[in-house]
Amino acid sequence: MTYCVGLLVKEGLVLISDTRTNAGIDNIASFRKLHLFEAPDRMLAIASSGNLSITQAVIGLLSEGFANPETGETETLSKATSMFHAAQLVGQAVREVYRIDGPSLEQHDTRFEISLLLGGQINGRRLRLFMIYSAGNFIEATSDTPFLQIGEHKYGKPVLDRAVKYETEIYDALKIGLISMDSTMRSNLAVGLPIDILVLKRDTLTPELSYRITSEDTYFSDLRHRWSEALREAHLAIPKPPYRTNVKR
Amino acid sequence: MTYCVGLLVKEGLVLISDTRTNAGIDNIASFRKLHLFEAPDRMLAIASSGNLSITQAVIGLLSEGFANPETGETETLSKATSMFHAAQLVGQAVREVYRIDGPSLEQHDTRFEISLLLGGQINGRRLRLFMIYSAGNFIEATSDTPFLQIGEHKYGKPVLDRAVKYETEIYDALKIGLISMDSTMRSNLAVGLPIDILVLKRDTLTPELSYRITSEDTYFSDLRHRWSEALREAHLAIPKPPYRTNVKR
Repeated sequence: MTYCVGLLVKEGLVLISDTRTNAGIDNIASFRKLHLFEAPDRMLAIASSGNLSITQAVIGLLSEGFANPETGETETLSKATSMFHAAQLVGQAVREVYRIDGPSLEQHDTRFEISLLLGGQINGRRLRLFMIYSAGNFIEATSDTPFLQIGEHKYGKPVLDRAVKYETEIYDALKIGLISMDSTMRSNLAVGLPIDILVLKRDTLTPELSYRITSEDTYFSDLRHRWSEALREAHLAIPKPPYRTNVKR
Repeated sequence: MTYCVGLLVKEGLVLISDTRTNAGIDNIASFRKLHLFEAPDRMLAIASSGNLSITQAVIGLLSEGFANPETGETETLSKATSMFHAAQLVGQAVREVYRIDGPSLEQHDTRFEISLLLGGQINGRRLRLFMIYSAGNFIEATSDTPFLQIGEHKYGKPVLDRAVKYETEIYDALKIGLISMDSTMRSNLAVGLPIDILVLKRDTLTPELSYRITSEDTYFSDLRHRWSEALREAHLAIPKPPYRTNVKR
């Protein structure tokens, strides 16, 4: 399992990804799922969820290049002319891996499962955040719903629904994303540390922050503890239900 | 969809259930999913999730009686000699509905989906809480994990994981259960008001509270508002990530 969340706020982009992979509960490993594509004129990042062989194949094709089925030209993310174009290329890479591996996976009853977050900016174009599905189609985050999640998304969604707005300050967005990750890690053992994070301010084309949070990270431990305590205090502060004296049978 | 949660704490049992059912997103209705079986010597309650025709058939069999396939005797919940026996009877009723309806449902590509919470007490026996699956097998809540959920359980699980202990005061347990329901309702439109609640104190055999929360309920509106505000304050009170000055590339 995996949990990744992308937040596109006014100031910029935040991407957060765990690193745990598992093939069955007895085969757990740690793999980086947050991949950066950096160049002087662009800064793109992909967070991946799904079958690890499929996600790694897609990232491989996007880095090394793959033949465009329509033009025959070799495509890589470095050739994308806009973020929309980049999302199309990621979708094409997903379809290419499906063309190559899909039938064999099906023979072994393995579902072709992948979902990706693609965020970033190309010089002169807009900072954007997309989610790409197994079929290669994609959607985009907008100011109405400025976050997208992939993987085990339900546990960590309530706090995002409540707290994240397009106007949220970018390091607050990072903080809320980390709280969302914490909620997910507590409820699903298949999501775990270390956590990779990326902060990309709008129109800078270079990460302000690219960091790995490990189990020794004192800030994240403190965040987890404070959030637990705050939730405890929050529900204690709510009055008890008054229904006791108002029985309807 | 449905969300129901049962909490078995030291003082007694809490059951909370929404009432929304849907056959597709364009066919939404309200049905009671919290069913009480009351008698002088017992107080049992069942909360149900899954295909509505299946859950109603199971409740029907348990009320009107069904032939025990092993003994031929007519079984109803009123004959259960203990809560464990009651859970067995509920499992048998599920299997009986599967025997009758399963093959036809399969012909129409409809999955036989049901899960049930059974809680209550029979005079002279222990107060217990069970979850019964589609196969008629079941598990029991214990003091290690004093809550069980059915239906859309993920959104509302983090707050339960953090806040509910066996020693939690019973009306606090109700409050936390309502917060869990609120988180679920915010993130899944297929879970909605009204909410039915039951509070059964240990060794009383009669509900202290059996109540329906509607959209006009001022306490529940206030709880939703306070919880949102408290979460907002809670994450604002956590310091911002210090990683800005500590970039690892």
